[in-house]
Amino acid sequence: MTTKQDIVSRVLKGRPRRLRSAGSAFAPSNIALCKYWGKRDDDLNLPVTSSLSVSLGRLGSNVTICLREKSDSVVLNGKRFERGSSLARRVSEFLDLFRPDRRTFFKVVAVNTIPTAAGFASSASGFAAMTMALDDLFGWELDQRELSILARLGSGSACRSVYEGFVEWRAGKRPDGMDSFAEPLKAKWRGLRMGLVVISDKEKNIGSRPAMKRTRETSILYRVWPVKVAEDLPDLKQAIHRRDFPMLGKTAESNALAMHATMIDSWPPIVYWLPESVAAMKRIWNLRENGLNVYFTMDAGPNLKLLFLKQEATAVKKAFPGVQIVSPFGD
Amino acid sequence: MTTKQDIVSRVLKGRPRRLRSAGSAFAPSNIALCKYWGKRDDDLNLPVTSSLSVSLGRLGSNVTICLREKSDSVVLNGKRFERGSSLARRVSEFLDLFRPDRRTFFKVVAVNTIPTAAGFASSASGFAAMTMALDDLFGWELDQRELSILARLGSGSACRSVYEGFVEWRAGKRPDGMDSFAEPLKAKWRGLRMGLVVISDKEKNIGSRPAMKRTRETSILYRVWPVKVAEDLPDLKQAIHRRDFPMLGKTAESNALAMHATMIDSWPPIVYWLPESVAAMKRIWNLRENGLNVYFTMDAGPNLKLLFLKQEATAVKKAFPGVQIVSPFGD
Repeated sequence: MTTKQDIVSRVLKGRPRRLRSAGSAFAPSNIALCKYWGKRDDDLNLPVTSSLSVSLGRLGSNVTICLREKSDSVVLNGKRFERGSSLARRVSEFLDLFRPDRRTFFKVVAVNTIPTAAGFASSASGFAAMTMALDDLFGWELDQRELSILARLGSGSACRSVYEGFVEWRAGKRPDGMDSFAEPLKAKWRGLRMGLVVISDKEKNIGSRPAMKRTRETSILYRVWPVKVAEDLPDLKQAIHRRDFPMLGKTAESNALAMHATMIDSWPPIVYWLPESVAAMKRIWNLRENGLNVYFTMDAGPNLKLLFLKQEATAVKKAFPGVQIVSPFGD
Repeated sequence: MTTKQDIVSRVLKGRPRRLRSAGSAFAPSNIALCKYWGKRDDDLNLPVTSSLSVSLGRLGSNVTICLREKSDSVVLNGKRFERGSSLARRVSEFLDLFRPDRRTFFKVVAVNTIPTAAGFASSASGFAAMTMALDDLFGWELDQRELSILARLGSGSACRSVYEGFVEWRAGKRPDGMDSFAEPLKAKWRGLRMGLVVISDKEKNIGSRPAMKRTRETSILYRVWPVKVAEDLPDLKQAIHRRDFPMLGKTAESNALAMHATMIDSWPPIVYWLPESVAAMKRIWNLRENGLNVYFTMDAGPNLKLLFLKQEATAVKKAFPGVQIVSPFGD
């Protein structure tokens, strides 16, 4: 059985090592249009299906890493995390894979440009930026595919945050996961906008890791999730290729709802939706019935991410006064 | 191709006809624990899967039918329905199947003992009672299986309302639907309670007929709905047989959520849930986490039907002050 450490050894084998005093990197957050839901390997973060995301431009994580004695230190947005906290533990477990020896520790300083408190804090940009900052610190000079594989070991969707723009994570088939990494699509879509709608910034009842495990183990409807993805993924790529926005919006919204449907079908049921999430969905459907081209996607939480084109920004702001509008490909 | 009229002719063939001045009958409402969702024949109301319900005792429809000249007349709860109304039209279309000649019309007087305004008005008890009242009026002396087949032609789930208690509707396989009828289970469960929780009494955006059609045509997850039913139906029967309430509650709740999940996966999405429905579900899960044995089921609407045992009635009333408690098998 392949372990995470095996993967790291294989990727770093024969790599130069020119230690610098510190390594830094930025990685964008990413929002999946075709979701990653369910692992075929829980340890190596190997997904059941491929997925497709769009990175959020300048919204993401800046990470600086340097070596340190005694113990790891994790500072996020100026706040130091206790060693026992689940975040610090998860970071240290990831760093374990890269320690030159047992007595080497790291100081990780991360600053998120996506509002963490707003419920959009994603481990994806954090683990991607950490991986890239380690590459910078140790001078490995890995290519993006290798960075994607290593980032995946920290958090599945982190493998997509190595790139800008539209990104596809190919599920791969190998048990060791060496063919499971993300790659960017060439297309850019300048007019595309994403609107972040905060329903709640409270911590969720159940994290996405146990939630996807429970879905896979208990939902009968989940059995055809791969069929759904096999239809949606090519449709999304075609929509991007043709700049067919209604097709993009419809496919992304339908994919997100199908993912939530598999959770709702799990036992015990997983319903990330809050009453206000349902109200927001209905508001969107109402806007659409009135001719506004706006769609949404949702992840493992109560918040909505609106999808629309530049020309609809004013109408969207009017309907969702608190919305934060993001331009994934710049203004 | 078999038509509804063919079925009626076949069932009534060789039957006596002793016309009385009026025919009357009562049929109970029924709530499915394993849902009927999706038709294999839209015209004959033949279901994709079998289903299982519990009838609501004295809550249902009283119907009296007599012959009349000129045109049909439909009075429900003292209110006369216009001929052009969708209810009157649907009733007249059903009555068309039983007219001795084209110039014979009916007066139908129905009184629902289940609060219609409360959002639990079901066509099931109405069409079942109409079928039984016609049998009484014409003196056909049909057996319950025949009544079940005829009631099904008015509304699918009406075939279950011909019986009291737990009722199974066997999907059948024949294209003419002569093997698609309901049968009662022997078991009675005196301690079983159902709690009707009204979230909204407004008319739904989409009726259950077009909703199941859309689900069947557009939801990929619906493809495994028959697999879900094939697991839930025997589990429910076993739970009833063993008087295993947690198993009954879990299976019924999970089945209802799976049905709603297939709707959520449809396009355009069908979400009968209102924000308050989600709030009520979360309240139930919270009660359960605190040791209360209460589950729910939901139909094609925003309201919840709680499932619990007699001894929990006080706690349920406290959590849901407006709940109407029903004893399907008497007090």
